[in-house]
Order: sequence, then C-alpha cells, then structure tokens
Amino acid sequence: MGPIFELPIRLPAKGSRALLRELHRQLRAAIIDGRLKPGSRLPASRALAAALGVSRNTTVAAYDLLLSEGYLESRPGAGTYVATALPQKARRRTRGGSRAAVDPRLAGIWREPPALLQPAPGGPYRFDFRLGHPDIRLFPFQVWRRLSARALRAASRAPAVYGEPEGRPALREAIARYVSFARAVASRPEDVVVTAGAQQAFDLIARILVVPGQTVVAVEDPGYTPLRLAFAAAGAKLAAVPVDGEGLIVDRLPANARVVCVTPSHQFPLGPAMSPRRRAALLDFARAHGVSVVEDDYDSEFRYAGRPLDALQTLDRAECVFYVGTFSKSLFPALRIGFVVPPPWARRALLAAKQLGDWHAPSLVQDTLADFIAEGHLARHIRKIRRIYGERRLSLLAALVRHCGGALEPIEGIAGLHLAARLRSPLRGSEVTMRAASVGIGLESLGRYSVSSRVDALGFGYGLIRAEEIDEAVRRLAPCLA
Amino acid sequence: MGPIFELPIRLPAKGSRALLRELHRQLRAAIIDGRLKPGSRLPASRALAAALGVSRNTTVAAYDLLLSEGYLESRPGAGTYVATALPQKARRRTRGGSRAAVDPRLAGIWREPPALLQPAPGGPYRFDFRLGHPDIRLFPFQVWRRLSARALRAASRAPAVYGEPEGRPALREAIARYVSFARAVASRPEDVVVTAGAQQAFDLIARILVVPGQTVVAVEDPGYTPLRLAFAAAGAKLAAVPVDGEGLIVDRLPANARVVCVTPSHQFPLGPAMSPRRRAALLDFARAHGVSVVEDDYDSEFRYAGRPLDALQTLDRAECVFYVGTFSKSLFPALRIGFVVPPPWARRALLAAKQLGDWHAPSLVQDTLADFIAEGHLARHIRKIRRIYGERRLSLLAALVRHCGGALEPIEGIAGLHLAARLRSPLRGSEVTMRAASVGIGLESLGRYSVSSRVDALGFGYGLIRAEEIDEAVRRLAPCLA
Repeated sequence: MGPIFELPIRLPAKGSRALLRELHRQLRAAIIDGRLKPGSRLPASRALAAALGVSRNTTVAAYDLLLSEGYLESRPGAGTYVATALPQKARRRTRGGSRAAVDPRLAGIWREPPALLQPAPGGPYRFDFRLGHPDIRLFPFQVWRRLSARALRAASRAPAVYGEPEGRPALREAIARYVSFARAVASRPEDVVVTAGAQQAFDLIARILVVPGQTVVAVEDPGYTPLRLAFAAAGAKLAAVPVDGEGLIVDRLPANARVVCVTPSHQFPLGPAMSPRRRAALLDFARAHGVSVVEDDYDSEFRYAGRPLDALQTLDRAECVFYVGTFSKSLFPALRIGFVVPPPWARRALLAAKQLGDWHAPSLVQDTLADFIAEGHLARHIRKIRRIYGERRLSLLAALVRHCGGALEPIEGIAGLHLAARLRSPLRGSEVTMRAASVGIGLESLGRYSVSSRVDALGFGYGLIRAEEIDEAVRRLAPCLA
Repeated sequence: MGPIFELPIRLPAKGSRALLRELHRQLRAAIIDGRLKPGSRLPASRALAAALGVSRNTTVAAYDLLLSEGYLESRPGAGTYVATALPQKARRRTRGGSRAAVDPRLAGIWREPPALLQPAPGGPYRFDFRLGHPDIRLFPFQVWRRLSARALRAASRAPAVYGEPEGRPALREAIARYVSFARAVASRPEDVVVTAGAQQAFDLIARILVVPGQTVVAVEDPGYTPLRLAFAAAGAKLAAVPVDGEGLIVDRLPANARVVCVTPSHQFPLGPAMSPRRRAALLDFARAHGVSVVEDDYDSEFRYAGRPLDALQTLDRAECVFYVGTFSKSLFPALRIGFVVPPPWARRALLAAKQLGDWHAPSLVQDTLADFIAEGHLARHIRKIRRIYGERRLSLLAALVRHCGGALEPIEGIAGLHLAARLRSPLRGSEVTMRAASVGIGLESLGRYSVSSRVDALGFGYGLIRAEEIDEAVRRLAPCLA
C-alpha cells in the first residue's frame, strides 16, 4: 500500500474527462501541500486505477500531466515518484486597476480601444430574432465530419509545412468556380485570397489601403459596425454616408473619399439592394477619382425572388473593386472562413499583409471546405436553407402585418437572413428591444448600427427562430410597441 | 433517350470526386457550346447514373452544381432542364503588368510589400534539414480525429454565434494550466489570448504597441524574420541588436527602444539560451525605460538536458512581458493556433485588435485542442517527440563531428528543433546550401535571418529527417563544404 491510498480521493461519477481533471487536481494538491512527500513512490497506474475504480487510461493520463508539469518524475524501470525538486508554483498576479488605466505604452487608438463587439445584446431568448446567425440545426454535420476526417487522413500523409498565404489551391479553385457562376464574379483560383472570415478581409484591405490619419473611407450609415471599426483601427478618417431604398446615396460621397465600403446585394442592416443606376454611379465615381470599392457580399446567397443583380466586381472595368465573401452565413460563423477577390494591383500587398498577419488559414478547415464545395454539398445546402429561410421570411412578413401593422413598416428587400422594419411609434427602437427582451424576445434596434442614429428601425433575423414560432413571437411583441 | 446520351462523356476510373468534377465539366461545356440546347430536358439523375455507370450521388451532385451555377433549372414535378437564360460567363480579366506596377492606391510600405516568406528554399529534398518543421509522422492523428469528431458533435448542438475574441474558455483553461506548470508562466484562463499561431500574436502586439514611424523596436540579429516583418509592417523603426552565446546583448540595446523582442529559451536561429544575468539585465532595462518585452517561446518544449530556465514572464515583476507560445512546433503549423499571455494593461487593447482582426480563432480547432491538452495527449506527445528529436540531435552532432569536423562547428544549445553550426570554410553559407540542394540535401544558411548578414552558419532542422538518415545525409554534405 503506497502513500497514495491514505489520500481521501473522491471522484465524480461523470465522464472520463471530469474524472481526469479531478484526479489530477487532487493529486497535485496533495503534492503541493506535502501530503505526498517529494521522492515518495506512487503506485503503478494500473493499481491506482483498480483502487479508485476508474479506467487505467484515466490514471495514466493524470500521471502524464503531473510528469509534464514536473510534479512527478519517472525513474526508468523503478516506477513513478513525487519530484524531489518541485516546479515553481505559478505566481498569482494582482491585476489591480491596471486593466482600466490608460497605459502610455499603448499606441494611438489602442489606449482607448473600442468596446468589444457583442453579436447581439443579452440572450438567450425564448424567441430569438438576433441578426447574422444562420440556423446551425440545418447544417449537414455528418457530411462535414466525414470530409474533415478525410482531410485529416490526407494531412497525416503530407509534410508539416506552412501553407500558402492565399489559401489552399483546392479551396481557391472551389471558391473561384462557385462565385464565378453563382455570383458571376470574375475569378480564377489565382484571384482568390482565403481569409479568416470577412472580418479579416476588411482588416487586410484597410491595412493596405489606409494611410493613418489621412485616408478618407466612406461607409454606409447605418452600416456594419465591425467593418467600420476595422478601418478606424487602421487609422482611416471615416465618412458616414446615408443610404435610402436604392442603397448608398452616391451623390453624398465626399469628393476626397479614397475607399468606399458598400453592401450592394442587401444593404446592412436595412435590406434594400443597391439599384443598377446607383451601382453604375458608384463605379463611375470610383473610376473618376481612383477610388477603391469594398463590396461586402455577406449574404447574397439568400435571395428569394428574381435573378441576382450582378456584383459590382462583375461590372467593374477599372479594377476598383475588392469583392468580399464569407461562409459565416451560408455555413456557420465559427468556421472563420471568408475570401477576397482583390483587383490585380492589390493582390501582392494583400498576400503579404495576410502572411504577416497570421500566415494562412488553418489547412484542415480549408481542405474540408474545398471538398464540401467541390462535391456540391454547399450548393445543396444553400438551396435547402434558402427555401427554409424564405418560408420564415414570409411567416415574418405576414405576422408583422397581422400583429404590428400600425407600428412597424417592413422595409423593401428580397434577400438576406434578416428583415428590417421601420418603427412607427413614439418609442425608440432601443426601448422596444428592452421591452421585448423582458418578454423573452431577442431583436435588435438598428440604431446601434448608425453613427448618426438617425435610424429608428428594428431588425428581425430569422436564422435562429423556426417558422412555426414566428407568429406567436410577433404577437407577443405587439404590446411592446404600444 | 434524351440529348444527353448523344454526348460522348468519358469519365476517369478514379474516385468519386474526380468523376464528379469531370462530369460537371463536360456537362457544362456541352451547355456552353450549345450541344445541350437551352430548355432541353436532362435525363433523371438515376437514369444518367445508370447510363454512365457511376453512382447516383455523383450525377445528383453534378446536377446540383449546375443548378446552383444557373446552367440548369428544375421545374417542380417536371424534371431538370438546361436553363433558358444562361448565366453571364465569368469575364477573364487581363492582368497585364498591373500586378508588378506600384499602385498609388496602396498605402505606405504596401506599395513595395515584403517578398512572401518561404518556409525554406526549394525542396522537396532527399534529406531535409529545413528549419521549423515538426515531424507530422509522429502526431497521433487518430486521437485528433476522435476529439475533433466529438467537438463537431458538440458544435452541432450549440447555436451558431460568434465566439469570444480571447478564445474558448476550455482552451484557455487548458493552456493556462499547461504553461503555468510546464513553463512556470503565471497565467490564469483569463490571462490567455488565443491567436492564429505565434505570427498573429506578433502582429497584434505590434499593432497595439507601435506608433507608425516613431516606435523603436529592438529585434535579435540574426532573428526570426516573420516577427521582424510584422513589426516593420506596423510602422516600427527596427533596431537590430546582435546576439552571442548568452543571447541578446542587452548592453547593445538602443536607449530609445520601446519594445524588445527576444527568444530567450532558444535563440532563433543560433540556439543558445539567454543567460540568467542577461535575463535580469533585460528586465531591469525594461523596467527602467518602460519598455515592453515580447518573449517568443517558440520551441522550449524541446529541451534535452537540465531544468528549463524560468520564462522572462515568470521573472517579470513590472508587467513588461508579452509571453508568446505556439502549437506549431509541438503539434503542427497548419493548425494555426498560438497564444499570448499579455501584461494586464495591454489585455483589453489586444482583445480589441484580435476581434477587429478576425473576430476569433475557429471554434472546432479550439475545442479539439482543449480536449487534446486536458486529456493529457499533448503532454504525452511532447514527451514522445522530445525523446525522438533528442536522438536525432545526438545523431546529428555525432555526424557533424565525424564528417564535417573541420568545416562546421556546432553552436552550444540544448533545446529546440534544430541545430546551428558555424561555417569554418572559405565558402559562404548560401553557396553551401546551393551545393547541398544539388545533391538532394535541404538546409538553410542562417545568414538569411540576419539583417547585417554578419552571420555565417548553417541550420540543421531535425523535424523532417529520421535519425537513421542523418549520418548519410551529413556524409554527403561534407564534400559541399570543401
């Protein structure tokens, strides 16, 4: 009987990981407070497992951790012992107020960094209309699991080298083919740069185009806050340009704008598509002033009527447009895969920025996604969810008319993963969302996306809510508008 | 017999993906060049599969792709037809010289971006001594596959929300525990920020600390080029500081340095550990001048003798040190997972920069790695590969003495995934590596890591070469040194 057995070790009845953590914690505690003396011999992992009634894997893993942490040492052929020289215990740092204080060592805007973005306020909600969340319940995880296992097998046979900053060839080929036809966006595999979601695309574009303190960047107002902040962080001088039912009001662009960021397929967050004449006017403006255009095509897959309008990049004849796409909406955000089709003159800089930023996107995810697209799963999945989201959209429109007709006026738009509605009420959107939250309904006041807060509208995402729940949700919302 | 059967379709005998690509390509070609007329009906996918002798999945997937691309349209209850209005064919852009030309729309350094980094010149090699590549053949892919499948199952039950910029709680807990004891680095889960490899850590730190054109950043010479370039891209004024057998020569630091980047565990690329007195001197310098220290602990897991020296972060009493770790060496680079333990005053800025940069690391990889660490697989894997790399290191040292004793002088150092040797030869390192490449040996001249190129040494990585291959490789190298 080794010393270990005098220890009162109580283990949870839970899964092996909980067991392991607990066993590891209790053994380490016993070593630290001296109940297990340095140099004392531990029982064999098998004996300990038997004594505690756990699997041997668990005791082996616990010993492994303690060995790696320096608490135990194994003497070849002689077993496992408590280390004679224990590792220095981790120092608990006192954080004090230093987190809040502004530190002179930080540069520029980082002394007062922007507050962290929250996907949406509060939650969880009984009825969830928050924006930008696809319905993960619809995703074919079995297919993904099979493809990722295959990608892993392939990786196990390849040398562990760093990958190409532009992304894996197979994925770029799949993306190029997909956007070439699905969106008529001109691209060849060598035109595509794979990024960590659309957000990294915005960040990289900002870095290569913005001269800190000088470059004027026009953004939609209201617009997508994370894009605005990425350009602000790069030192851009932001110009908020209003939008109407035809999208960005091109006439309101400042003449000194050097970069213009737009969401032409489905203005975020209000919803209208940019009209053909506005698209032409924007491209004329860009060509005339040598302006770069960032086309954020974040959810154009979800279009419920008519033929898709051509992407700006498709219409572009002056190599002005950076086309940015993402799989966060068609698949799921946690994948963190998006892409850019930059104009040729920007490609080399973009690749350098990408490589210095994080070298390349994780290869296994890229390989899995490449097969997912090449085998037609993406096309199939999008057709499926487009139908389902379309049904939800119709249910939502009907319910808004039925229950909130006087107070909410849906805004035109035939695409996307959410619907915006103007508030015809003495209440502010923010008050309505607070009231709604109190009755278990999550929705967003679109004022939070506006720098001028001249917007008073509500956003209804339908990625998280089922069609059959929508009518009741809106019925419950109605009183919050009175 | 529909028109399809007049098409001579030849399919490869290969796997279903090759079949699918080929079938898709040939059908699309037939539609584009009019062999399949708009409005013509296609046979049912089952009939086509039977006719071509392929699985129905393949024909369904091909139809799915063509439907999503707009080449086909399905009429409910009536089957699949060639679309009457074909999608606009992707425009083939002429790239001309515009890629090479410097474009005024690019900002600052991005007009002449740094050349893309190559992990190592040329390859593949019969004998591969390139630096920085772990041996993927040793990685427990079965375990990883099991854990990633589990992570995927868990994800399929969670809502698809955006994650925390600092990384998943379970991973931060696993990392904090691991480094607290393995490296005596003080950290709690809330101290850890998960990054896309060490490279993103450098990039984020540079962004929050560097005032473009002003901040002086001291780097080791020779040193890790990707780190230097990340700080340069952020606008830092770089000061290259020489290293000797004790690491960075602290006395040579410019007084106006505001950031100092070091590799104290295993100077990259020469190999010596920073001596205790140099560590103390550096921390004194940092405290006295309000300097931030970036500690790149890139491969300290691989230490073959003695107890690990304390990390600078462990010795730091003035909250100067950003501790940067990576799993690119202990697991594999394509994972793109690293982490930072920043000083408290920098945490909020770092999180904001991370979120604006790419929001967060991919969740599935994080969850898989969290379990991999928590269950002891990381500790076990590192103990295993440390033994194997140690054997390779000894074989290498013996072979260098045996075959190249006169021309190469190994540099002291007891850690890491590579060995450096000074060149005692009239030849330059670059000439030797070229000669070596011509006889199938990949190795690096360490001069490429030096801005002053005062270094004439060769680097021998042993992540890609087996112990039993080393003697022959070095024997073949010997004549290249003459």
